[in-house]
Amino acid sequence: MSVLEKVLSHLDSDRENALDRLFDFLRIESVSTDPAYAAQCVKAADWLVEDLRSIGFTVSRRDTPGHPMVVAHSGGDGPHLLFYGHYDVQPVDPLELWDRPPFDPALEETDTGTVIRGRGASDDKGQLMTFIEACRAYKAVTGALPANITILSEGEEESGSPSLIPFLRENADELRADYALVCDTGMFDADTPAITTMLRGMVSEDFTIHAADKDLHSGLYGGAAINPARVLVKALAGLHDDNGRITLPGFYDGVSEVPAALKAQWDKMGFDGEAFLKGVDLSVPAGEQGYSVLEQIWARPTCDINGIWGGYTGAGFKTVLPAEASAKVSFRLVGNQDHTAIQAAFRDYMQSCLPADCTISYRNKDGAGATNMPIDAPHFEQARQALSDEWPREAVYVGMGCSIPIVGHFQQILGMDSVLIGFGLEDDQIHSPNEKYNLSSFQKGARSWARILNAIT
Amino acid sequence: MSVLEKVLSHLDSDRENALDRLFDFLRIESVSTDPAYAAQCVKAADWLVEDLRSIGFTVSRRDTPGHPMVVAHSGGDGPHLLFYGHYDVQPVDPLELWDRPPFDPALEETDTGTVIRGRGASDDKGQLMTFIEACRAYKAVTGALPANITILSEGEEESGSPSLIPFLRENADELRADYALVCDTGMFDADTPAITTMLRGMVSEDFTIHAADKDLHSGLYGGAAINPARVLVKALAGLHDDNGRITLPGFYDGVSEVPAALKAQWDKMGFDGEAFLKGVDLSVPAGEQGYSVLEQIWARPTCDINGIWGGYTGAGFKTVLPAEASAKVSFRLVGNQDHTAIQAAFRDYMQSCLPADCTISYRNKDGAGATNMPIDAPHFEQARQALSDEWPREAVYVGMGCSIPIVGHFQQILGMDSVLIGFGLEDDQIHSPNEKYNLSSFQKGARSWARILNAIT
Repeated sequence: MSVLEKVLSHLDSDRENALDRLFDFLRIESVSTDPAYAAQCVKAADWLVEDLRSIGFTVSRRDTPGHPMVVAHSGGDGPHLLFYGHYDVQPVDPLELWDRPPFDPALEETDTGTVIRGRGASDDKGQLMTFIEACRAYKAVTGALPANITILSEGEEESGSPSLIPFLRENADELRADYALVCDTGMFDADTPAITTMLRGMVSEDFTIHAADKDLHSGLYGGAAINPARVLVKALAGLHDDNGRITLPGFYDGVSEVPAALKAQWDKMGFDGEAFLKGVDLSVPAGEQGYSVLEQIWARPTCDINGIWGGYTGAGFKTVLPAEASAKVSFRLVGNQDHTAIQAAFRDYMQSCLPADCTISYRNKDGAGATNMPIDAPHFEQARQALSDEWPREAVYVGMGCSIPIVGHFQQILGMDSVLIGFGLEDDQIHSPNEKYNLSSFQKGARSWARILNAIT
Repeated sequence: MSVLEKVLSHLDSDRENALDRLFDFLRIESVSTDPAYAAQCVKAADWLVEDLRSIGFTVSRRDTPGHPMVVAHSGGDGPHLLFYGHYDVQPVDPLELWDRPPFDPALEETDTGTVIRGRGASDDKGQLMTFIEACRAYKAVTGALPANITILSEGEEESGSPSLIPFLRENADELRADYALVCDTGMFDADTPAITTMLRGMVSEDFTIHAADKDLHSGLYGGAAINPARVLVKALAGLHDDNGRITLPGFYDGVSEVPAALKAQWDKMGFDGEAFLKGVDLSVPAGEQGYSVLEQIWARPTCDINGIWGGYTGAGFKTVLPAEASAKVSFRLVGNQDHTAIQAAFRDYMQSCLPADCTISYRNKDGAGATNMPIDAPHFEQARQALSDEWPREAVYVGMGCSIPIVGHFQQILGMDSVLIGFGLEDDQIHSPNEKYNLSSFQKGARSWARILNAIT
């Protein structure tokens, strides 16, 4: 029996205890956004400290101006890995929509199998414990871990992580590793594990076009006075051509087609774009022509109006010529698109759309480029193989339409890439009532991490 | 000495008394929109009843579900005229911006001459009394009026005239005359009297474009899901071409160029389009190219976005793909444009802009065509000549960018055109603190009516 087989066998035989530990952890009401739960956040941190210490980690609770961090080091040989997960959870409102108390976790039988029901079951306590259980089993079987592992757990992920950046900066030398493992993502579907390797970046602009010095009566001034809402809609309408492509000069610089091998993998996954859109009552992909829905949401840049307002928006009618009109517009970026250049191109374009008498003002917002993991690095393929060994279907590299801030922080502050692996499913109802985590996600997730730790070198 | 000369002379010698009467009337706090002032509205109506009775009118207060109407008949020979004015006034808030109590009228010397300061001085008690003083003088001098005059005064003009339409319908036979005189407009400038002969009509649309069944996360769906705000801005942007012309098929059907003679009159008036725009901090006429500012606001149709909204419009950023986006759009109509056809053309156009997965819903609003007075009718030129005799500069026919509802009601319910003459000035601050009416507007206004009554046959 190989070491890995022994570790997996230990995980299987220790299942009940692992579940008890997770339930203990889930009972702690570590809602980070509500100050009333501050003591519960400390309690969750302390719980983690004790549990990690029991496995043999050198661990400490590190207080911050907000909720504490937990940092644990295994020491030892092998690649140096930083594992990240968070112990805080979302608020539970509206409580009346829960079918059982959110902090009284239980197993439930459902049409799609047994689930662990409770706040944090999936996001992120359950996911975090998959990794810790794998470590515990390894330590129990071999007396050591197969890598030099540091675990960082924060308690403010669901409330904007205000302490995270200072903490990473102050403790950069302690936390820097070869790369990070982040367990806050999902599977492609219940049978297909995934490594998220592409995250879109973003430029967002929040601005107002100004014209007359006050709202005007459209009867008295209509026809002679410039209407900033008309300027705004004309400018925004010009951002896309008839094929759904974005018209800003240089916008597609740095955008590459999805490599053939990856595209072939995606095509094999059987993603149903029609069903994806049908889920929100739509039927026709609205993005760039010539790309699949999956490409449109993972691998192609976008421009969207997130908000628009101006003039009279109440009930009834007021024949006003607005003095100003505003919008919030964001671009999702991919590949090597330069967010600074795109912001500049957008502002140049808007300026070119302004007639005399109109000015524009911006409310500032930072941008960020896309993240593209170096999937040629050997540990990516090692992890993907390890995942494939555990699950019914082969693991896939997937994209994600939005950004995950921690990945950017690790890159910028610690100079370190991340491997994003998680076992959540789309129907986990994270952030919503009746959150759940499939029992198979928890148990096979822990086995997956054991396989990954065994595989990466 | 002609009859007219005697009447004018009587008006001059009775000036002090006329001012006393107006001040009495202005002291009544007939704010129609605030129920707390209901008794004051009745008091103003009763004051008018008494004053008109003293001149010899057969007069009655006619109660309505709201504030009362006052109807007075002179009887007698000559053309049958219905004079309309309103006795109610706007609220006075914010009171602290008034330099003196709004219902304690007084004469004040200003840089541009003596003014009557007080709420209602211009809108509309002062204007109303110009006509009544002319009638009084005529009666005093000749024992009769030169026409068969009916006076209708309402007390709800500043609060939407809810009782007006039913009252006109129920009393149509009593109120119908050869034409109406409406004293609720202004002069072209302090030296130049005006008859308003063109009022723009309106089609207004209030609608929402619907897409997904809920707001979506732009990271998860952006690129694949249709954004109704993008559909909206593209549709709205297509309503104007690069020359500021409106693109709806058939939109300009029924629009004529201003007749050469009228345009020549307008050109002579010395309207300063640049100063007009500078007053609201603008400098460049934004309407159809090839037309003067005056044509743009009086004689050309427009399309304006009065309100637009969708998605997240609060502080900060929310990367939402809105489920719907809305706008309020209005068209000002001129000439013989058919408001029904234009509304249909707009809706056809919007439908043609909707991609699959989008629907549009309208919140209903009535439209109305433009009003063009029959200035070939002899009484128009008679009135214009009479006005020209009184004032430093020749009277002009002017347009008005907005509609005056009473004119439409008289046309539709009583089948009667209106002659719009008034002596207000742009700086009268009606509806605002420190409302005033030039003493010359009041005194020469009364003399003007005397001349008009003498002239029209």
